[in-house]
Amino acid sequence: MLPSQDPDAPVARLAHVGVAVATLAEAVAFYRDVLGLVPRPSEAADGATVVSLPAGGVEVELLGSADAASPIGKFLARHGPGIHHLCFRVPDLERAIERCRAAGYRLIDDTPRRGADGRRVAFLHPKTTAGILLELSD
Amino acid sequence: MLPSQDPDAPVARLAHVGVAVATLAEAVAFYRDVLGLVPRPSEAADGATVVSLPAGGVEVELLGSADAASPIGKFLARHGPGIHHLCFRVPDLERAIERCRAAGYRLIDDTPRRGADGRRVAFLHPKTTAGILLELSD
Repeated sequence: MLPSQDPDAPVARLAHVGVAVATLAEAVAFYRDVLGLVPRPSEAADGATVVSLPAGGVEVELLGSADAASPIGKFLARHGPGIHHLCFRVPDLERAIERCRAAGYRLIDDTPRRGADGRRVAFLHPKTTAGILLELSD
Repeated sequence: MLPSQDPDAPVARLAHVGVAVATLAEAVAFYRDVLGLVPRPSEAADGATVVSLPAGGVEVELLGSADAASPIGKFLARHGPGIHHLCFRVPDLERAIERCRAAGYRLIDDTPRRGADGRRVAFLHPKTTAGILLELSD
């Protein structure tokens, strides 16, 4: 039996899917030429080059890195290319963090920090969220 | 240098993120109680139980299976819980399949087949799409 929906829970929406790729140009070509997505200009964050492609209210965020010591470089070395994280936008980041903590979910960031696009973010550890690195953002 | 955007490419939108989970009730609890998502009634497909949670134009599709011989059961045994696939909705499925084939991307389904929710779908092999199992759907 599941507890019923909590009416006080913030309602989140999926903002982007972060994908670690070995070769950005190849990955961009697939999403652009086969799926028709239009890449936004690339930016840099955490030692990675980021190319975002809006795909109907949510973005595919391609993450490439030539720096083996960067988070994406390490992910690629350990897992190979694939989905790196999901980002959910929540209406109240502090409250979402507090709800995670209260429910026993393990946080990587106990307090919000500045993310790639200037938004405040906090990551949850994949150990507590079905193997998925989850980013909460406001 | 990348080739420029092809104006004839179909424009896709991300429809859902499929997540393989060990325990459906636990995973549902996280998305419902922390992120405030409202689960739709569960359904069955390909030996898996599916719970979908709309998350702002795109759905989180939780996939659990007690059947070790099912596709999700095999995925869980091999990889553990985590993101299983991304589904993009395209305006013209046959044409998208043809574009994939022409561009040399490896298809699991050469022609559309009937998916879980009655839509026609075709899967692309993760080997050619940066490690991601991609579902195209109309």
